[in-house]
Amino acid sequence: MPKKPYILNVKIVAKTRLFQVEALDLRFSNGVAVQYERLKTSSYGAVLAVPMIDDETVLLIREYAAGVDRYELALPKGRIEADENVLDAANREMMEEVGYGAGRLTLLKGLTSSPGYSSQLTHVVLAEGLYEKRLPGDEPEPIEVVPWKLSKLDELFQREECTEARSIAALYMVKDLLAKRAGGR
Amino acid sequence: MPKKPYILNVKIVAKTRLFQVEALDLRFSNGVAVQYERLKTSSYGAVLAVPMIDDETVLLIREYAAGVDRYELALPKGRIEADENVLDAANREMMEEVGYGAGRLTLLKGLTSSPGYSSQLTHVVLAEGLYEKRLPGDEPEPIEVVPWKLSKLDELFQREECTEARSIAALYMVKDLLAKRAGGR
Repeated sequence: MPKKPYILNVKIVAKTRLFQVEALDLRFSNGVAVQYERLKTSSYGAVLAVPMIDDETVLLIREYAAGVDRYELALPKGRIEADENVLDAANREMMEEVGYGAGRLTLLKGLTSSPGYSSQLTHVVLAEGLYEKRLPGDEPEPIEVVPWKLSKLDELFQREECTEARSIAALYMVKDLLAKRAGGR
Repeated sequence: MPKKPYILNVKIVAKTRLFQVEALDLRFSNGVAVQYERLKTSSYGAVLAVPMIDDETVLLIREYAAGVDRYELALPKGRIEADENVLDAANREMMEEVGYGAGRLTLLKGLTSSPGYSSQLTHVVLAEGLYEKRLPGDEPEPIEVVPWKLSKLDELFQREECTEARSIAALYMVKDLLAKRAGGR
């Protein structure tokens, strides 16, 4: 494993309601000095749930995505609150966005989105044993819930409304895991 | 498909060397008005290459990731330049980061990282028919190239140094595609 660069200095260069940008002075182990910028995100991290309504069917949501100004079909996700653990956060987000809680929650993997310039970490949680339960969320309009068969992920990923990398990675992971569990390979 | 919200106003609220934050005033089709923030990224987008040195082996890179302050094992990627098309950009990034060019380049999919609050789009390009060719990059230290068998993706994704969602999604996609091409299913 290579030797990490030394962080000489960290300075906040911009701060808005949602974002905080840091400038870093780094010196690599070979002596080369550089300045990078990175986004500082919530220290509690985020959570993404994979709600399986049965062994073959996942519940997706279709939600307006302001960054790309269109509706995106993806898995439910959100920030972890200060007083929550990862699994509770996944359960709460599902109740708010999908209208279900889960009897069994399994942490699968921590995913980064842009590790080169953001500290964001999203925990992928498999949710099974679903039961109906809705909590009020902060969404400006009702979220559409779309059941999708894991056997038809190819069709899903061909759609222009399904582009979000964390959701795609999580769906492949869960498909793999459930196939293994079923003795599929 | 739901009716998109109307964007009433867009204002730049922060600008640094790398990042630009916009505040958006939106009105949803049900009349609810909200203010969101989003990151504005390069309008040319980014590219991620999946360099296959043979039908079973992909070339990964181990590179320092400032956002998480550790080395990350992932696929080569970078921004598309103003005068480049997507496939040329993928080829250039490979030459800079991996030391190979590709005879055959295939665009597979556009991935977003955080469509809710960033416009970033990364084009996944399968690269085959590799030949040795190195271009100078702007990296502060040499990048380590790590060959990895597609049959061992599970082991890769269990490693704490492999977390980047776009790379994980792209590797699953390519594994699927090559299995289909080989008549594996």
